[in-house]
Formats: sequence, C-alpha cells, structure tokens
Amino acid sequence: MTTPHFIDHFAADRTYSMPLSEFSLIERFFASRARRSAATAATAATAALGIGDDCALIAPRADQLLAISTDMLVEGRHFLPDVDPRALGHKALAVNLSDLAAMGATPRAFTLALALETPDETWLAALADGMFALAERFGCELIGGDTTRGPLNLCITVFGDVPRERALRRDGARPGDDIWVSGTLGDARAGLGLMRGEWAESLYDADEAARLRHALECPEPRIELGLALGGVAHAALDVSDGLAGDLLHILERSRVKAQVDVEALPRSPALRKLARADQLRCAIAGGDDYELCFTAAPEHRDAVIAAGARAGVAVSRIGTITTLLAPSEAPAIVWLDASHAPLDLKLQGFDHFNAA
Amino acid sequence: MTTPHFIDHFAADRTYSMPLSEFSLIERFFASRARRSAATAATAATAALGIGDDCALIAPRADQLLAISTDMLVEGRHFLPDVDPRALGHKALAVNLSDLAAMGATPRAFTLALALETPDETWLAALADGMFALAERFGCELIGGDTTRGPLNLCITVFGDVPRERALRRDGARPGDDIWVSGTLGDARAGLGLMRGEWAESLYDADEAARLRHALECPEPRIELGLALGGVAHAALDVSDGLAGDLLHILERSRVKAQVDVEALPRSPALRKLARADQLRCAIAGGDDYELCFTAAPEHRDAVIAAGARAGVAVSRIGTITTLLAPSEAPAIVWLDASHAPLDLKLQGFDHFNAA
Repeated sequence: MTTPHFIDHFAADRTYSMPLSEFSLIERFFASRARRSAATAATAATAALGIGDDCALIAPRADQLLAISTDMLVEGRHFLPDVDPRALGHKALAVNLSDLAAMGATPRAFTLALALETPDETWLAALADGMFALAERFGCELIGGDTTRGPLNLCITVFGDVPRERALRRDGARPGDDIWVSGTLGDARAGLGLMRGEWAESLYDADEAARLRHALECPEPRIELGLALGGVAHAALDVSDGLAGDLLHILERSRVKAQVDVEALPRSPALRKLARADQLRCAIAGGDDYELCFTAAPEHRDAVIAAGARAGVAVSRIGTITTLLAPSEAPAIVWLDASHAPLDLKLQGFDHFNAA
Repeated sequence: MTTPHFIDHFAADRTYSMPLSEFSLIERFFASRARRSAATAATAATAALGIGDDCALIAPRADQLLAISTDMLVEGRHFLPDVDPRALGHKALAVNLSDLAAMGATPRAFTLALALETPDETWLAALADGMFALAERFGCELIGGDTTRGPLNLCITVFGDVPRERALRRDGARPGDDIWVSGTLGDARAGLGLMRGEWAESLYDADEAARLRHALECPEPRIELGLALGGVAHAALDVSDGLAGDLLHILERSRVKAQVDVEALPRSPALRKLARADQLRCAIAGGDDYELCFTAAPEHRDAVIAAGARAGVAVSRIGTITTLLAPSEAPAIVWLDASHAPLDLKLQGFDHFNAA
C-alpha cells in the first residue's frame, strides 16, 4: 500500500539536515516567544509547568471557576488562503478570547494546535507576532501545543478565571430584560462583501475600506466589557455567527422569546453607505463581529452604560425579552421595523455545514 | 473574487432543509452522548457548566494542579483515510489521555474540535462510540467543542488532576536512576509495516495480525500506571514518536546522559518474528506505542514492579541514567548490544515536518 503522506516512524530513513523540524518550529516561534512573553509579564506566570512536558500544569485560583473554550479555524472556511498571517494570528486567538469575554472571564492561558503544509519562517513569525501581541495585551500565556503537517488548521483552547456568581451564562435571560449589543454590527460582513466585490469599491475611500477589512480580520475581543458586566447582565454571548442565530441560543437556553427593534441595531457610518437591505442583512445575519449580545434588567440601564464606558465601547439597547416559552414552544425573535410592524426576515445564524 | 468555500454569512441565501446541520451534528453525536455519559457516571459530573454555552466551567479541586494537554490528528498523517471510525475515536482520545498518564494525572474532562468534509451519520456515530467508550472507562467528561467543515482533523484538549508533588515531569531524572518502559515496544510500527506490505503477511496468523493492527489503531493509555508511579518515578513521558527520540526529551530536560541495553527492550512474540534489525527499528524508532518510559531510583525497583502489577501492565528495566551533562554538552543515549558494545543507531524520534 502506498501512503506517501502517512507517518513514517523510521526516523533513520530520513535526512539529518532538518532546516525547520517540528520541534525547532515550536521552539523558535512559539515556545521561546512564550517564555519571553511570560518573563516580561506584569503578573506572575500562570503555568506551574509550561511548554516542553507531556502536559502543562496550572494551579487553580481559589474561589474561581475555570472557563474553557475551544475554536478551530480552517483555511477556506474561516480565512482566505492569502490572509495576512499577522491578522490570522490575531484572529485565531481573538475568537477564542471572545468566548471568555462572553462568559465574563479573565484570560489566563491558551494552547495552540497547528497543522500546516509547508512551514515558512517568515509566515510563522508573522503569525506568532499577531497572536502574542494580543495574548500579551490580556496577560494570556501560551502553555502548550502541538504542531503537525496537514491542511492549514489552527485549533486554540483558552482558559480564564471567573467567580461563579459573575459568570455570564446563556441561560439567565428573564422576561422584561433589555437586550443589548456592544460596538456596531455588520462591519465584518461588509468587509467580506467588499473583498468579494458584492458592492462597488467606489462606495468607500481607502480609510473606510481598510476599517471594514480590519473589522473582518482583526476583531477585538470585548474582555473588559465582559468583566464589567459581571453582576449586571443576566445572560450573554458573543456574536460570531450573526445576531439572528446567536440571539436564538440565549432564547433556547433561557426558554424565552424576544423582540428586536431593527432600527436600533448599531451600524457604522461605513455600513450605512450600503443599501438598506444590505445593511440589515450584514447587521442581522452577518457573522464575525465578535461583539457581545447580552440581557439585563431595565433598572440596570445606567449600570450597563457605565460598564460600556469603563470598557471603552458603546453599548446599544436593541430589544426586549418578552415572555417565557411554553414547554413545547420553539424560541423565536420578532423583528420590528421603524413603524414597529413585524418584519419576516427568514434569517438565521451561519451554519458551517449548510453554507454554499 | 470567487471563494466558493469561504464563509457565507448570509444564512438567508441557504436552504432551510438542513438534514444534518452543524448544531444538530454536535447535538446528536456528542452533546447528547456527553449528557448521557455524565448522567450514568459513577462520580459527580466534573463540569459546573458543560456543552452549550460560550465556555465550559469547571471547579478546581483543592490542592490539585490541573494538567492540560492538546493533540491534533490529521488524516493521512496520523491515520489512514480508510480508518475504522470507532478506532479513530478511541485513538484520538487515547493519545491525549496518554499525556495525562505520563504526567501521573487523573483524567477529568476533554474538549473536541472536529473538522470534516462531509458529515456522515454512521461514521460520526462510530467515531463517538469509540471515543465515549474510552472516556467513560476513565470518567473523562466531554465539556465542549467545535465543529466545522474542512479536511478531516480532530483536535482534543484533555484535563486532569494531579497533586503537585506527584506530577511526573520530564526534568526529574537523576544519575543512577534506572530507565523503565511499560508493555512492549514496536508493535504499532510492526502493525503499520504489515499494512504497508513491508514484511510478508505469511509471517503472521490472523490473530497475530489483528493484535499488531490493534496496537497501531487502539493504543491503551497507561493511566493506572501513571497514577501508581506518583511518588516513585523521578521522570516520565509517553513513547509516541519512538523511544530514541522521546527518551532524549527526558535527557534534555533533566540535563543527563543515558545508556540503554538493546536486548532488554521488551518485544512481543509477534515482533520477534521479524528480522532482528527490523525488530530493533520498530522498538527503538517506531512510534505510536503510547507506553510510558520513566526513571526511578534503584532502591525503588520493587515499588516500580508493584506499581506495574497494580496497573496490570508489565514493566521492564532497559537502562540507566549515567551522568549529568556538562553545560555545553548535548544529551545522548549510548545503545549497548548483547555483548555490551555500543551500537551506532543513528536513529531519532519521528518528526512530522521531515518524514518522507
């Protein structure tokens, strides 16, 4: 049986001139960088034992739960083959940190598993730069990983600390809650549309075009906002697959219904240059925004706005949790237009296995 | 720009007849299975919050470190395209549990990120069966994951508990220590050679052939042995890339040299049917054995043998940690033949980026 790409365990069959072996790869671009990063960190290193053993060891913090999330990014699905590797390094970690933000957790550490076909030093150095620049901003330490040859794939698992009573779960929304989102929605999808030629390039000047592309490639995890919402928000998640689909997850887990005021959806000036239907499609069904969507009691409106101000990001009230679901009822969102008439959007969140 | 496989965030563009969407996939084969698995577990569920939120939440255990390891398995590198999915499910988790075993940790939970091109219910059900059968044996709970379309790739991150003073690190080997391995070495590589036609099929009857293939496809993580060696072994790792390369990791981290008695390497009756040179190549440079290699003081020989007996696996003494390395010296293994003359093997551990 000829399986040229299958593992060859007879190392002796191989050459001894290994310009960039697996181990030197890990060492050069990640392990050494992780050590430098930990050495310069303002806080004590999180790992009792880091890269280079069978497992990393971390000491739990008293009275905190450990929040864990994992995300896999695949070339051609989550990023284009010609993506800037620095932006890819940022985004791969950012989408994971965004899950910690949505849980109200403080980032602590991450592992990276990386498959790539041809290790390229320049490309890897840029990937590591983008990843560590973000990791260092949030004191998030690389504690372990795996590297293998294969179609380009990045799988990151992140770890954060959160006190049990401050965890922002999806199942805590209550009838009467306001629904909020941070930042603006739809810019990432507008950036993708621009790159794909779905709308005229002439619509945007170079600055605006760069901003939209930046929204797609360099999302900002809303860590500070997640932390500021602990004890204030009842339920939260990050908008990764589009508001329409993601808000449904809160409704399903909390067994409630919602109505959303479409005109209240926060849209950037750049997004507002698109036709209205495209604006709404981007804001409601576009993904990759990584803004937080959360619910809170109306008496906490000032506290929510103060949390946004503390975190340096705008927060917009977009709707209401209306009623509890009957036991057999499916969760649903009523979308209201400017005249408060329901819109039939027939939209839902992005689903990898059913995308064209 | 035409990017047919790139993310399409406009869910409305897609059909509503979704026979097996991403979310129903996760739900049907993994989340529901994880819940059943947790519900029937003898011990209390580990997760304070499991699948279905932005993050899983686990409560740390008092006086324990959390051991974390991640491994990525890629089709064509770590398994053949026609692999039995049940065996693949077992192996993907087993190689991760093996890292916990090598740290002396008790398995607790895992996350699974899975990329696949075409979701197939039968295939996924078998994958889940193999994975959960192993997970349930060790009380290891699936607490989160990610699923996406892409070239077949499984990335698992495992979590275990270990008291700080019982952690089996790689950096604790001391001059005078015995070097031990569990089980037999080389069977997985012999099984691969058989599948590849590197040696005559006529050498083996059906039972032996099945045993060798089983060694390759269904490695047994030595969890009980790892636990039994806590407080006894000075250093340990699991043999995943071949003894020659893996033992070097202990030497590097512990800054010591070693000699290994080639005739003492434990070999199964099936392996001993190969030519002697092939036996040694399989046992020394073959990978995928997932046996533990560890060092312990000579006065602990009885304790090591008792630990093996308690764990139900043979342990073999194969060599000695000789001296400390000088500061500028590179770690090295002296391989001794039956007459105690040094062999020049020029072998080293498998390295993904330099395999043929």
